Amino acid sequence: MKRIAYLLFAVVALTSVIVYVAHATGDADVKAAPTFDIKIPLGYRDWKLISVAHEAGNNNDLRAVLGNDAAIDAYREGKLPFPDGTIIARLAWSYISSAENNKVFGRDQSFVAGPPINIQFMVKDSTKYAATGGWGFAQFKDGKPNADEAVLKGCFPCHESAKDRDFVFTRYAP
Amino acid sequence: MKRIAYLLFAVVALTSVIVYVAHATGDADVKAAPTFDIKIPLGYRDWKLISVAHEAGNNNDLRAVLGNDAAIDAYREGKLPFPDGTIIARLAWSYISSAENNKVFGRDQSFVAGPPINIQFMVKDSTKYAATGGWGFAQFKDGKPNADEAVLKGCFPCHESAKDRDFVFTRYAP
Repeated sequence: MKRIAYLLFAVVALTSVIVYVAHATGDADVKAAPTFDIKIPLGYRDWKLISVAHEAGNNNDLRAVLGNDAAIDAYREGKLPFPDGTIIARLAWSYISSAENNKVFGRDQSFVAGPPINIQFMVKDSTKYAATGGWGFAQFKDGKPNADEAVLKGCFPCHESAKDRDFVFTRYAP
Repeated sequence: MKRIAYLLFAVVALTSVIVYVAHATGDADVKAAPTFDIKIPLGYRDWKLISVAHEAGNNNDLRAVLGNDAAIDAYREGKLPFPDGTIIARLAWSYISSAENNKVFGRDQSFVAGPPINIQFMVKDSTKYAATGGWGFAQFKDGKPNADEAVLKGCFPCHESAKDRDFVFTRYAP
């Protein structure tokens, strides 16, 4: 009986740690995005930075592109194609003028990350995603998939223009 | 003799690893910036992301703000003031229009990180930097300090306006 209690305690403690870690690192969704069957990778918010950008188009966002270790290693070593297991995350936030920063600078010059727009992932699996250059694509908002099949099927045709860089647009910022 | 050879080999191998790691993570400068006596922290390029911004002022940059573990933990837990040992890194790159991305989008909407401008650090040490809110400030370009005492002495008076957030402007982007 005592042993079972210990075991139960251990399971509960471990679960708490997992949930805490998942929460702290901003992910752990269990629902997969359609088409490519991709879930939000655990810990992606802790990944290393590849680069930053401002897309002034429909999204009008400030974005950070992060990579798991396979992605970062490949970028830094200049290795193409990216190895299977590579995941690249694109985090986009609303592009907003910062009133508090502008006040300090004395002019309107500061644009910062506002509310999150969505998160996109590119997952490399040259077997599973052979039909799309070895890449699967997914998009999430508030922890849930928020792009339907039609949208996700549009990813690869667009990325094809970066074929000489293994279909990845973002370059590493030193 | 054989033992000494082994030892030498081990030292050389270890040194190579250290140099490789330092190189791969983009740092290991030995010269400290003036005024606050701050060196480039080892491994800063691998730190987790706090947020991103576009400063359209004199720098006209895209910037990423990264933090060491103490910084990230404090941000995520909403803890103020930041604990001693906190280091916040601001990496700035030229804000450039991306011809290759715009071609894909069919319009001029994409701005990306161009050549690096400089890197700034805020280092928390409430004893050493008691006169400046507990923060030391430094700036580097191409691995070398590139701001003189007059410039660095201007950091704190500006950051004083963010006193209610422990003198840190950047907010965490979820």
